[in-house]
Amino acid sequence: MQTELETILIAQGRKARRAARFLATAPTHKKNEALYAMADQLEAHGQEIITANKIDLEAGRKQGLTSALLERLTLNESRIHDMAQGLREIAALPDPIGEMLEMTRRPNGLDIGRIRTPIGVVGIIYESRPNVTADAAGLCLKSGNAIILRGGEEALNSNRIIARIISAAATQAGIVDGAIQLVDSEDREAAVFMMKMHDYLDVLIPRGGQGLKKAVLDNATVPVIMTGMGNCHVYVDEYGDYEKALPIVLNAKVQRPSVCNAAEKLLVHQAAAQAYLPGIIKALQEAGVEIRGCEKTRRIVPGLIEATPEDWSAEYLDLIMAVKIVDSLDEAIDHINQYGTGHSEAIISDNYNAVRSFMAGVDAAAVYANASTRFTDGNVFGFGAEMGISTQKLHARGPMGLRELTTTKFVIYGDGQIR
Amino acid sequence: MQTELETILIAQGRKARRAARFLATAPTHKKNEALYAMADQLEAHGQEIITANKIDLEAGRKQGLTSALLERLTLNESRIHDMAQGLREIAALPDPIGEMLEMTRRPNGLDIGRIRTPIGVVGIIYESRPNVTADAAGLCLKSGNAIILRGGEEALNSNRIIARIISAAATQAGIVDGAIQLVDSEDREAAVFMMKMHDYLDVLIPRGGQGLKKAVLDNATVPVIMTGMGNCHVYVDEYGDYEKALPIVLNAKVQRPSVCNAAEKLLVHQAAAQAYLPGIIKALQEAGVEIRGCEKTRRIVPGLIEATPEDWSAEYLDLIMAVKIVDSLDEAIDHINQYGTGHSEAIISDNYNAVRSFMAGVDAAAVYANASTRFTDGNVFGFGAEMGISTQKLHARGPMGLRELTTTKFVIYGDGQIR
Repeated sequence: MQTELETILIAQGRKARRAARFLATAPTHKKNEALYAMADQLEAHGQEIITANKIDLEAGRKQGLTSALLERLTLNESRIHDMAQGLREIAALPDPIGEMLEMTRRPNGLDIGRIRTPIGVVGIIYESRPNVTADAAGLCLKSGNAIILRGGEEALNSNRIIARIISAAATQAGIVDGAIQLVDSEDREAAVFMMKMHDYLDVLIPRGGQGLKKAVLDNATVPVIMTGMGNCHVYVDEYGDYEKALPIVLNAKVQRPSVCNAAEKLLVHQAAAQAYLPGIIKALQEAGVEIRGCEKTRRIVPGLIEATPEDWSAEYLDLIMAVKIVDSLDEAIDHINQYGTGHSEAIISDNYNAVRSFMAGVDAAAVYANASTRFTDGNVFGFGAEMGISTQKLHARGPMGLRELTTTKFVIYGDGQIR
Repeated sequence: MQTELETILIAQGRKARRAARFLATAPTHKKNEALYAMADQLEAHGQEIITANKIDLEAGRKQGLTSALLERLTLNESRIHDMAQGLREIAALPDPIGEMLEMTRRPNGLDIGRIRTPIGVVGIIYESRPNVTADAAGLCLKSGNAIILRGGEEALNSNRIIARIISAAATQAGIVDGAIQLVDSEDREAAVFMMKMHDYLDVLIPRGGQGLKKAVLDNATVPVIMTGMGNCHVYVDEYGDYEKALPIVLNAKVQRPSVCNAAEKLLVHQAAAQAYLPGIIKALQEAGVEIRGCEKTRRIVPGLIEATPEDWSAEYLDLIMAVKIVDSLDEAIDHINQYGTGHSEAIISDNYNAVRSFMAGVDAAAVYANASTRFTDGNVFGFGAEMGISTQKLHARGPMGLRELTTTKFVIYGDGQIR
């Protein structure tokens, strides 16, 4: 027996499938016109969005959401303008669909090519920030995919009006109805049911914390792209330049500690520890960071909290940093590969061989030489907006832009060949 | 509480993880030396392999395996030589690892590149043909991945000796122990537990029928690449050339009906049906094919079995073909997108617009113009061996060779950049 909620979700899935067939061959100019219309309509309805957002904020305050969460949830004119600009930027990006990646002629005369196509129907489960609703819908539309959006309960009123505005704008611009749909339910079961809709969703992108990750592992039959688990390290090598190490460690830790590409761990080569650690730790502490040190670190900088074994795996998303002194570059690489989440990892070194070994040996979505881990971001990498940062290895790894929302198919041109 | 089997599998998983770290940076010449050694050792131990294979064949006969299955299970000197040659061909292919796919300089001076890396640890669950053991291990070794192999129970003795020989040869050639491991158990639970080993396996490739697919949907927490579901169509257009249509339909259906790229359905445009269908159906029947016709087909060729609604979704893997007359190209495309499995689909037409619409509109791993669906194959496409044919859209679609066993990572070179 289907529940009422399941019946609604399946109907949305069917509608998305139909829309996806239309979108797969929609001309670029039509998709772009829709994106510009969506942007214009968001700005035109700014006051309505702000009014709806106030209901979410009021409810959030009553439920005792932290001020950080309330801040993420807040929409104002400037943020609505940014959302609209994001859609216009996506419209300005080249259309990835139809690109022939390669074509070769085989000995039997067949021309075999590989061409970029949309994935089909994309599902996304996300939290808090209502701008994701517009970003994700815009990226999916441009890449020819239908999208089913499932935002956080705390943002339902905001997401509902944003989805309604952009969906109506897209339809008026000639995109078939059903290309952009929101799951209009606060029920947690809606997210769990989405994870099992493999007949209707070609991929599911969960953006959230450990709870969502576990629910996905337990329930998903839809292929999933895991995003945003970030236990990131900065390793200061024996040959690291202090003048680069200090600002990079500080930036990676404190510029925005709540995001997944912020550094959580500092590894320092033993040969550099005595000279560098006191200064780096002092600067971090002055920036409000709580330091948890390994035994050797605490001998060099007395009075630090002791790092526990759990610290090496932890993702704090806060002004906390654990510090470990390693005996060698190899120990640093092994430590990162063992405890890291495969997100963003950095080495600070002026030694050619050390950098080369680190870049090759560290298994992560983004590996940095002499730069802050904070750069792992679709905009910084030049993708326009981003759909999330994949920390898995299949299909997409790192920031996901338009290209990561596509697949390929083989096209084979013959003149009667048989086998 | 872990069962003994689970304890063994987890130990294999740990060993594979360690091996994968070694393989990720193993030099190409060392991997190739191992592949040549594996090939030589398979040939040197041919008699032992044949003896072990006889035990499997004997047991299979007692269990009443069909002659087709027994045939697939059989190893002889020639097949062992083919396995060895397959490994030598993999050695001769270029190493995909370390290829820089692109690198751009961003406005802030960061050089951001994307480089090809191994996936890590690959699991494969397969049936019957013991040569898959060598093919899959060879492809994974060359692409820098560790592999855990789980063959069919009916081939356990054959797979056991093949895995032992090639694993020992690789180790002697300097590859770390654990790169190639077989799950040495007839227990079905071993396969189910593998599907849940997401801490140890980066991807699982199931090769098998509907039962395996269902078990994977029900149990897998490891990211999966589904393979080889093939309800393939040949569509003969209004503007199709009979001289091409007849041999292509025959070839697609009868050349090897038991494989996933064989055609199961024939769609014919109504304007071509009267002229083409009697001849095509007669030729198919003479080749031993049972025809199941739609109502219109049965009016043109009386006496055919009636096609039921279930026929349109069926994958026969046998000398059976269902035939449907469609009113238009659009109906053909819609029918294929609704009932097909997204494997291989062909149009026979000399009309430019019809071919262009079909290639763009059909959503499948391989779409053919005027050629047989039977060509969807890693060897034919020029990939050397293949790991399976993906019928999903994420990560890999169509025949999977070395490239599909890789992922990428971003490498970012800076000189002190912060955000």
